[in-house]
Parts: sequence; structure tokens; C-alpha cells
Amino acid sequence: MIKNDLFLRTLHGESTERPPVWFMRQAGRYLPDYMVLKEKYSFFERVQNPDLARKITVMPIDQVGVDAAILFSDILVIAQSLGLQVDMIPEKGPVLQTATTEAEVAALNLENTYEFFRYATPAIEAVKEGLENRVPLIGFAGSPWTLLCYIVQGQGSKDFGEAKKFILNVPERAKVMLEKITEATIRYLEIQIDAGCDVVQIFDSWGGILSPTMYYEFSLPYMERITKAVKDRVPVILFAKGAWYALDKLNATGASALGLSWTTSPEYARKICGPKTIFQGNLDPATLLASPDVVAKATKKMIDSFGGQNHVVNLGHGVLPTTRVESAKAFVETAKAYPY
Amino acid sequence: MIKNDLFLRTLHGESTERPPVWFMRQAGRYLPDYMVLKEKYSFFERVQNPDLARKITVMPIDQVGVDAAILFSDILVIAQSLGLQVDMIPEKGPVLQTATTEAEVAALNLENTYEFFRYATPAIEAVKEGLENRVPLIGFAGSPWTLLCYIVQGQGSKDFGEAKKFILNVPERAKVMLEKITEATIRYLEIQIDAGCDVVQIFDSWGGILSPTMYYEFSLPYMERITKAVKDRVPVILFAKGAWYALDKLNATGASALGLSWTTSPEYARKICGPKTIFQGNLDPATLLASPDVVAKATKKMIDSFGGQNHVVNLGHGVLPTTRVESAKAFVETAKAYPY
Repeated sequence: MIKNDLFLRTLHGESTERPPVWFMRQAGRYLPDYMVLKEKYSFFERVQNPDLARKITVMPIDQVGVDAAILFSDILVIAQSLGLQVDMIPEKGPVLQTATTEAEVAALNLENTYEFFRYATPAIEAVKEGLENRVPLIGFAGSPWTLLCYIVQGQGSKDFGEAKKFILNVPERAKVMLEKITEATIRYLEIQIDAGCDVVQIFDSWGGILSPTMYYEFSLPYMERITKAVKDRVPVILFAKGAWYALDKLNATGASALGLSWTTSPEYARKICGPKTIFQGNLDPATLLASPDVVAKATKKMIDSFGGQNHVVNLGHGVLPTTRVESAKAFVETAKAYPY
Repeated sequence: MIKNDLFLRTLHGESTERPPVWFMRQAGRYLPDYMVLKEKYSFFERVQNPDLARKITVMPIDQVGVDAAILFSDILVIAQSLGLQVDMIPEKGPVLQTATTEAEVAALNLENTYEFFRYATPAIEAVKEGLENRVPLIGFAGSPWTLLCYIVQGQGSKDFGEAKKFILNVPERAKVMLEKITEATIRYLEIQIDAGCDVVQIFDSWGGILSPTMYYEFSLPYMERITKAVKDRVPVILFAKGAWYALDKLNATGASALGLSWTTSPEYARKICGPKTIFQGNLDPATLLASPDVVAKATKKMIDSFGGQNHVVNLGHGVLPTTRVESAKAFVETAKAYPY
């Protein structure tokens, strides 16, 4: 039904004429037309209003030419669904009502998940309409550990020291929180899939700041639970930024593909996971700050090192806000020109 | 001559009764007595005044009981020695005069290195006097790539996008800068060794934000050059934060020990480098935010996983400013209580 199904065929392990390409945060901050909408509407209006969600999600398909769309949203909606106030402060980023005491963790509320996410179905349906079956739509959520980072710290952080202190000092309370986040996330992904998302990705943006031992205890089991809950319905992509040491265990979850950071070489990933695993990534997003010819050369080298198969071309993390559209286009067009 | 030579014996590959312990940024921001001096004197007064440098460097020996002292200074002194203005802005961190154009890079000045560092010899001699041969003194410098990050970006950054753009767009100009930084660093380390430093450490704080390919081109060769220049005089420790993928190549430089981030497991490091390599690390610094009993348990587990030999107990990065002194003491005392 979907005209350009290159991304889906790749995720199903088929051999393809070229690797598909999309990139994390492709719908957003580096696009001038997005910045116009950002000036006019609040962050959560842009997420929840079907017309805005459609416009923003479809924008990179028309303007940059990627092979997949990703729903415009934010990982912090799960914190909101649990009853916490989340504000997006310009220049500063998200500020959250925290939950750290036993009473605050007990009060995290799973009863309103469906009520809270009632905006999602019409928004996703509007996006699907806007896509006119041109490319598949990716839904997404954050990993439970990454959500805990924000819920405990209350804002972004270089080291999420408070979040780590929390899991070290009160591990059982942390696990109660992680269980609740996991359940809300599974429900939210089910809603996304019911409304038409063709693939889902779990972003463990702060996975790589944990030591391996802590990662295996506080992040991996919850990612695995989510993967197992939805993987029979749609392909699941796991992206654990910087958690190179967990590749073998992430691969064993049954996910369809693994996102790689730019510090994990394709050769290393292949050695650990074998020839069949589908990898997504992994150009350093800062590369797109360079001139288009430098971008094209670096992208080509990256694609070649993956070998052109079992690979979804992407960045190793979200596109930087200062990226120029020409450089993003050079990245996408290089992938589309494969084989060179 | 040095009474507690456990650290030196370990770096020389000797079998020891217990692993030595010190930690990165042990002289500084988490110590109340340091904060008193910080209120009264500017950053560079604290570095350059022999009396202040002595007080601050010796403080953790007396107050926390570590087995080695590390000279109180900052990696950015190399940028100053090249003629760039560096200001330490409270709450914000360093702000540097940048050098990015061809003319600015050409103007980076190697002629004043010795003149600039004339404060270092009396400061180090005062420190040595204050130590009274109780423990060895570590000198240090930043890696050339890490210095380039600050000189191009002009301040701290999450991604050092401008620095990466610089090495991608004008790699030859970047290498001219790296050469100059390398030369200034070798001279500065020679001065430190001449004045009495027993060991030196190179901090590649931003090594791990480069892809392996970029690391091998823009960081490793300069670290190697510095190591080879001084390693016959004193043991050299290389700490490349997050650059797990380069462990084998860092090990081949001839350094006496390799610092490990907390995301690199001892098992992995041992597998890559073999049984003889001396590792330094690697407790997650955020662990010290937890209660002293949690710290003791985690430290014990970490030391056990290194096996008690060929190991310098340390953190996986600098101690966090919000660390309580009791927790830092619990870390040090656990190492000193080995074998359990």
C-alpha cells in the first residue's frame, strides 16, 4: 500500500536496491518553515493539533526527501500522561514537576493514560492523510530509564547526577517508577500503532551514561519488555545512545533494528551482532555543520563501511539545530545515489 | 625517597599489597576549605600563586587521604601560553578568545611558552615542599584535540559542533593548530617534570565525542607524540574519556597506564589490552552522590572486578561539585581496606 516501502523492506531483512534514509529530529528545528510554526504555537499545540502535527511531520518528506516520516512529538508526553506538569522553556529546554519521594512515585497515575492520549489518534490519522501513503510513519517513545532521568532531575543535565543518586539510594522505588513508565509506554505505543504507525522506535537517549552493570539493571529489562509487547505488530528499532557495550543484549530483545551512535564503528557492531542484524545510523550529526561536499564525502564513506545492505542510513543522534538545509539534503541525496 | 610509593610501584608494573587510590579533581570544588579560597582569589591566582597552589594541592592528602597528589591547575593554561585570553566566568565556566581563521591560527605563538610558564616552577616547588615526600605528585595537560575544542568553540559545549566543523572543513589548518598545541604541551610537561612532578597525565576530556576514524586522525597521533616525548622521564597516564574504541591504540603508545571511563567495563578493557596493562578508574563519579554505605559497596565491587592488581583506583571522570566529603572518604577508605 505504501509507495516507497524501502524502509519497511529493509527492516524485514530483505535485500534492497539501496539503503533507505531518514534522520532523527528530521521534523524540526533546522527547517525554516518549522521555525515559523514554532514562533506561533506552543510546543504541545504543535504536538497535539492534528493540522500542525501533519504539517510538521510531512515537511521533511517534501523538503528533504527522506524515505520515512517520524511523528512530531516528544518523549516527555509519557511524564505528562502520568500526571506531571511539563513546560518547554525557550532557550532552556524542558522543566518538569519532579517525582522522587515514595508518595510522589506512588501518585504517578496510570488511570489517565488513555484519557491523556486521546489527542494522539486524530493527530496520527491527520499525519497519515498528509503522507498519502508515500512513505511509512514511525511512532516513538523514550526508554523508561531516559524518562526517569527527566522525572527525577526535573530538567536536562550533563550527568543526571540526581537520577543516578536516586537509583543508587532507593533502587526499589526507582523500579516502581520504571514499571509505571513501562506500562504507560506500552499503552501509548499501542495507540500509535492502532492509529497507523508502521514502525516504532524507542529512544534511550541517556542509556549510555550508565555503567554496563547499571544499564543491565535499570534500562535494558524495561526496553526489552516494551519491545516484546509490540514487536509482533510492527518492527521495533532500539536506539540506546552511547550504550555500545549493550549491543549484544539489545540485539537479543527481538528488535528489528539497532540504532548506532557515531562512536560505534560498523565493523565493531557487525562483529558483535553478526551479519543479519539491521543497523541504523550513524553519521556524527556535527558532520552536517560542514559544507555540502564534505557532508557527501563523509556520508558515502559511512554507507560504504556498512556495505549497503541491512542498513538504514541515519545520523548517530538528532540533527543539530544549526544544521543548514543544504547539508541535510546532501546527506539524503548521497544515500539515494547509492550504489555510487 | 617518597614514603608512600604505592602509586609509583603500581605504575611500574609491580605487584602491590593493595591498589593505590586518588581521584580526578580531588583538589577542588567539593572541599569546603577550597571554596573559601575560591571566594577570595581568582582562578589563575589559585593556580599561579605558590602558596595557594600548595595549599589546594595538598588539601586532599590531609583531608581525604589519597595516595597521590595532582597539581592544582587547568588544561586551558596551554591556550593562554599560545597568546589567547582565557576567563573563568563563575556559573558559566571558561570563555576563551578563539582562533579559527588562517591568520589567527598562524598567530598562535610558541615563542612565549617559557616566559608564560615561569610561574609553574616555583608553584610546583612549593607543592613538593608541602607534600614533604609523603605521596607522589602528578602533573598534567589536556590533549591537543581537547584544547582545540575550546580554542575553536570559545567555551564549553555539549557537542563541540564548531570544533568538529573546523576539523572537517579545514583539516590542514586544524593540524597546524594541533602541532602548535602539541609542542607547547611537551614544553609545559618538561617544565613540570623538571620542577619535580613524578608522573604526568594527559586528559583527552573530549576524545570520546569523535568517531573512531576522526579520533585516529585528530587526537591519537598528538597524544602519542606527547607520550613518546616524556615517557622515558616519568610514567605517563592517558585518559581519553569515552574513547573505548581506541584502547588498543592508546595502549600501543607506550603509556604506563590507561584511564577508563565508567562505561568501559574492566572485563572489556582487559580483553582488549591483555593482563599486563595498568588501568586507572573507573567508578561513575555520580556514585559519590549516594550515601557512604552505597559508595563503599559500589567501590568494592569495582575494585574486585579489576582483581586488585595492575589497577589505580579512581573515578571514571572528575568528581562532581555536589559530592559530599564523607562520600569521597568512603571511596578512598574502601580502596585502602583492600583486600576485604
